[in-house]
Amino acid sequence: MTETGAQPTTTTGEEMHSLVERLYPLCRSITGDGVRATLDIVGEYIPLRVHEVPTGTQVLDWTVPQEWNIRDAYIADSTGHRIVDFAASSLHVLGYSVPMSATMPLAELRAHLHTLPDHPSWVPYRTSYYKPEWGFCLAQDTLDAMPDGDYEVRVDSTLADGHLTYAEHVVPGQVADEVIVSCHVCHPSLANDNLAGIAVAAFLARALAAQKPWYTYRFIFAPGTIGAITWLARNAERVERVRHGLVLACAGDPGPLTYKQSRRGDAEIDQVMRHVLTASERPHRVTEFTPYGYDERQYCSPGFDLGVGSLTRTPYAGYPEYHTSADNLDFVSPEAMADTLAVCREAFAVLDRNRRYVNLSPYGEPQLGRRGLYDSLGGRSDAQQAQMAMLWVLSLSDGEHSLLDVAERSGLAFDTVAAASDALHGAGLIKA
Amino acid sequence: MTETGAQPTTTTGEEMHSLVERLYPLCRSITGDGVRATLDIVGEYIPLRVHEVPTGTQVLDWTVPQEWNIRDAYIADSTGHRIVDFAASSLHVLGYSVPMSATMPLAELRAHLHTLPDHPSWVPYRTSYYKPEWGFCLAQDTLDAMPDGDYEVRVDSTLADGHLTYAEHVVPGQVADEVIVSCHVCHPSLANDNLAGIAVAAFLARALAAQKPWYTYRFIFAPGTIGAITWLARNAERVERVRHGLVLACAGDPGPLTYKQSRRGDAEIDQVMRHVLTASERPHRVTEFTPYGYDERQYCSPGFDLGVGSLTRTPYAGYPEYHTSADNLDFVSPEAMADTLAVCREAFAVLDRNRRYVNLSPYGEPQLGRRGLYDSLGGRSDAQQAQMAMLWVLSLSDGEHSLLDVAERSGLAFDTVAAASDALHGAGLIKA
Amino acid sequence: MTETGAQPTTTTGEEMHSLVERLYPLCRSITGDGVRATLDIVGEYIPLRVHEVPTGTQVLDWTVPQEWNIRDAYIADSTGHRIVDFAASSLHVLGYSVPMSATMPLAELRAHLHTLPDHPSWVPYRTSYYKPEWGFCLAQDTLDAMPDGDYEVRVDSTLADGHLTYAEHVVPGQVADEVIVSCHVCHPSLANDNLAGIAVAAFLARALAAQKPWYTYRFIFAPGTIGAITWLARNAERVERVRHGLVLACAGDPGPLTYKQSRRGDAEIDQVMRHVLTASERPHRVTEFTPYGYDERQYCSPGFDLGVGSLTRTPYAGYPEYHTSADNLDFVSPEAMADTLAVCREAFAVLDRNRRYVNLSPYGEPQLGRRGLYDSLGGRSDAQQAQMAMLWVLSLSDGEHSLLDVAERSGLAFDTVAAASDALHGAGLIKA
Repeated sequence: MTETGAQPTTTTGEEMHSLVERLYPLCRSITGDGVRATLDIVGEYIPLRVHEVPTGTQVLDWTVPQEWNIRDAYIADSTGHRIVDFAASSLHVLGYSVPMSATMPLAELRAHLHTLPDHPSWVPYRTSYYKPEWGFCLAQDTLDAMPDGDYEVRVDSTLADGHLTYAEHVVPGQVADEVIVSCHVCHPSLANDNLAGIAVAAFLARALAAQKPWYTYRFIFAPGTIGAITWLARNAERVERVRHGLVLACAGDPGPLTYKQSRRGDAEIDQVMRHVLTASERPHRVTEFTPYGYDERQYCSPGFDLGVGSLTRTPYAGYPEYHTSADNLDFVSPEAMADTLAVCREAFAVLDRNRRYVNLSPYGEPQLGRRGLYDSLGGRSDAQQAQMAMLWVLSLSDGEHSLLDVAERSGLAFDTVAAASDALHGAGLIKA
Repeated sequence: MTETGAQPTTTTGEEMHSLVERLYPLCRSITGDGVRATLDIVGEYIPLRVHEVPTGTQVLDWTVPQEWNIRDAYIADSTGHRIVDFAASSLHVLGYSVPMSATMPLAELRAHLHTLPDHPSWVPYRTSYYKPEWGFCLAQDTLDAMPDGDYEVRVDSTLADGHLTYAEHVVPGQVADEVIVSCHVCHPSLANDNLAGIAVAAFLARALAAQKPWYTYRFIFAPGTIGAITWLARNAERVERVRHGLVLACAGDPGPLTYKQSRRGDAEIDQVMRHVLTASERPHRVTEFTPYGYDERQYCSPGFDLGVGSLTRTPYAGYPEYHTSADNLDFVSPEAMADTLAVCREAFAVLDRNRRYVNLSPYGEPQLGRRGLYDSLGGRSDAQQAQMAMLWVLSLSDGEHSLLDVAERSGLAFDTVAAASDALHGAGLIKA
Repeated sequence: MTETGAQPTTTTGEEMHSLVERLYPLCRSITGDGVRATLDIVGEYIPLRVHEVPTGTQVLDWTVPQEWNIRDAYIADSTGHRIVDFAASSLHVLGYSVPMSATMPLAELRAHLHTLPDHPSWVPYRTSYYKPEWGFCLAQDTLDAMPDGDYEVRVDSTLADGHLTYAEHVVPGQVADEVIVSCHVCHPSLANDNLAGIAVAAFLARALAAQKPWYTYRFIFAPGTIGAITWLARNAERVERVRHGLVLACAGDPGPLTYKQSRRGDAEIDQVMRHVLTASERPHRVTEFTPYGYDERQYCSPGFDLGVGSLTRTPYAGYPEYHTSADNLDFVSPEAMADTLAVCREAFAVLDRNRRYVNLSPYGEPQLGRRGLYDSLGGRSDAQQAQMAMLWVLSLSDGEHSLLDVAERSGLAFDTVAAASDALHGAGLIKA
């Protein structure tokens, strides 16, 4: 499907889907044991450093909330039959529901029930993080079948001082400059949003570790919004070293890839992603930054304004299954996740080699022949490309043009340009 | 017809047309009592401060000329019948004609007669301000009907030291920074060029005064070229405070609106006018600056280079009736003038609220919920727009982007963005 | 065909073709007597200053090579019949062939024979400047007709310390700032590449000398690559004075003109060439810079980065006859060379008059009438254009816009704008 990625590795796709399957039943939220259990499982794939930040900690403009944990929740009819049961799906309870236990008539209960009338068999996903509330999410069909009368309602949850949990995994590079890859881990049983993103991130980290990358790659697994804000608040100095970044979400649905540019729009990651998506000839979309979506909102807030874009397949809220029980294990495929992973690898392969060089022999062309730079070439066609690439690198290596700039201006493949720069660097004709 | 202006107020359109009707018969020129009479009438609508600048005053590269006044002018045949009579139309005499009285054969008279052979029933408008000359303008049909023979010719005019007259009206604002609105008052009985412009300016001033605008709005009613130059020469310090401006002309013809950009092309008034004309979905044209036309020539001369554009319906010299007796009371309509006025009001409503803010909480998103900024929202659809507008304003408030920039980048209505900025400003999250 | 150049002068075209005919038989290379003989002939048209640079001289990253001269070379069959003979065409010997004399079987000889199987009747052009080698170029048809057996092979050449030869011709201007015109003189019997370029350059120099140009125009006749590098190495101070330049090559083939922009892409020569080619309504192409082609590679190397473009008809390697015996006297026409010359003259006529002026009366419009600047105008249509041109020059003369910028922005002809600037300069209203 792509030059460097070839046919997405079905094996890896299956492995990622297996990880999604393991994570799917857990009840995640912005705090609590569901996040910890998730990170435990991811930790079996890549080593994670887990951080616990106490309730009440000031993080930028926000405060770490109380920790929420839930053991059971249900609506039972007068016979004791559980009509809506948290044990069947973590979506059934409103996220961050306060504990409650009561018997009440359906008329009173209705104000706490959330359904999707347009998709009567689907269960919606709803939360109320910062306003104390309780509630249940259920299929409209289920609600329609509930006779009037009294129901036993119970939410066995705890809201108490505790911690917010997030984790990091670092692939060390040759330089301290960092690339961050961030994905949210706060959604309960939703496969595309964001278990697929978590799985792709984990396998991307494994792939990078097998190389010896230039940049240090930091993977952040954190609850949406408050988690990214917490990371930013606790890493003021590290943020200075973040050169590029990518927020990964909705990585497994059947739609084409969508790259949402950073707030700057001209960040290097933007150029790299545009280039790789175009060069790979995949159907794809590139969109402008909007201050809405996932945690690029935080990384690109004007005070930080990091060069962080967001890669999804179908973007935020762009598919009917979004934030419903239909975002399930069938909605994400091994092939789609493998394709997302392949593009990430292609992009980081470019990003990681993309440098600005300075021609050390800038007056006239240096004599390549006596340095053996023509002899080193193989077949005629390749040789011509390699020679042209050397001339282009020499011409544009003025400290302003990157190798990707050279590739785009010359129309040569990035790999050819990078190889030429290696040869010229080896001959002492350019310096980084 | 537009969101904010709705259906142009027919009443106002009729009032403006009435003003045009009153001004129409007067014989205006770049100096003289016709200008004074015009300003007297306009002064009944908005208070004017009238300036009289003596003949011989040096103004920039020019000198205020002698004042011209005319009492009578005619061509009479041998029976004493007036074939061409200034009393019938002020257009009949060449503007600034020197006094003369003679009897001469038609053959000799012809050199002083101006007609429009292509429009044989129309009377052209001609002047000779800076070269002493006398002449008459008449219909080709009239000329064709004149038999050979002697004619009595008389121009009872005065060219003498006196004054150049112009007037100002100021709508005070909250800041001393000024917006100027300028229109020429030197053309005789031509309705579109520029009595319609004068009428729209007067009613625009009244409308602005009813608000408490941010900027101070200065309306300049001055003879073309020499009048604008005189104002600029006498207001060197004030010019420093002019932030934006608009030259109003040809405001009543049936053509679509045309906005001619300032010399800079990227002045804020240019962006505002482009935005408002596009957002209003009126048919319209936006053209590049040319150093020809009306007094934008002076305001945009490179030494001043003010952010002053020009709004007309059909532009300068762009219609056959231009500078002829066909530019009469029928050529301008209440509807067209009301539409021009509406666009001016819409544009100034945007210009007046357009600010650059700085996000005071730029690291991550501020928590809008605890400040009640979500609660303040009404219906769901509006609420989403308002929330998006707040996020956009926060994202782009880096001191570089104006609210109009935010509106254009987000695709949200300016009013929605401005309301969001008010809410954020009220919450102390942004500062101007 | 063009406003200023009119129908290309057939006479001049014929004269240029005659020069090409005289130069055609000579065996040129990057050094040696063929270059000297070529410069002797060109010197009959325009005076040349010839430079001789000794073998071994360090020039930038390169070293002047040994001088190559050749007296005779052939392949003869067993009967002594010369099957391939240098006397018939200078293309028959591999450029810079080392001396050799031997008898060898065809099987052994083949490794030193170069043909064009796709064009079996054409003789290719090949060289081996920096790798000691000998060889012959011949038609595939000739080779096919050679029976197996022994052949006498002889190259009577000399490779010895000597000199590299190049020449300059200077058309003095009013200022020391220079425009360079460079063409390569190292190719043997190839008419388009580059005898046509040499001929156009020589006649361009003559035409310029007949005027009194503003810039000093320097014509460089030098071997490709090493010659341009030698000139650059020996003229470090002069390079500082080079403002613009043009590399001339492939100036006589039947294809449309192609202008290849400088590395900068926004150099003044780029704007001038784009303007002149477009305004002349000739079919033409404008291409981006590539670090391949002719000596623009050296002039535009990043250390120099001169504003030097390249004008050809069909560009480098863009036609089948390129570097073959089919690039002969029939391939270049008087008409094509005359057309190339005409465009160069038109372009330099613009370049030479293109200035940035400063309006000395920038506040408001200066009063043109009292300076007689309206009176100086002829017929009404011309007068309007001239008046508009004066207003445009006054409006844009802020030290940033050139006259060509004024022409392009106003849509007026460059000549009209330049004439207006002369009038305004004469009136003391603008200064350079």
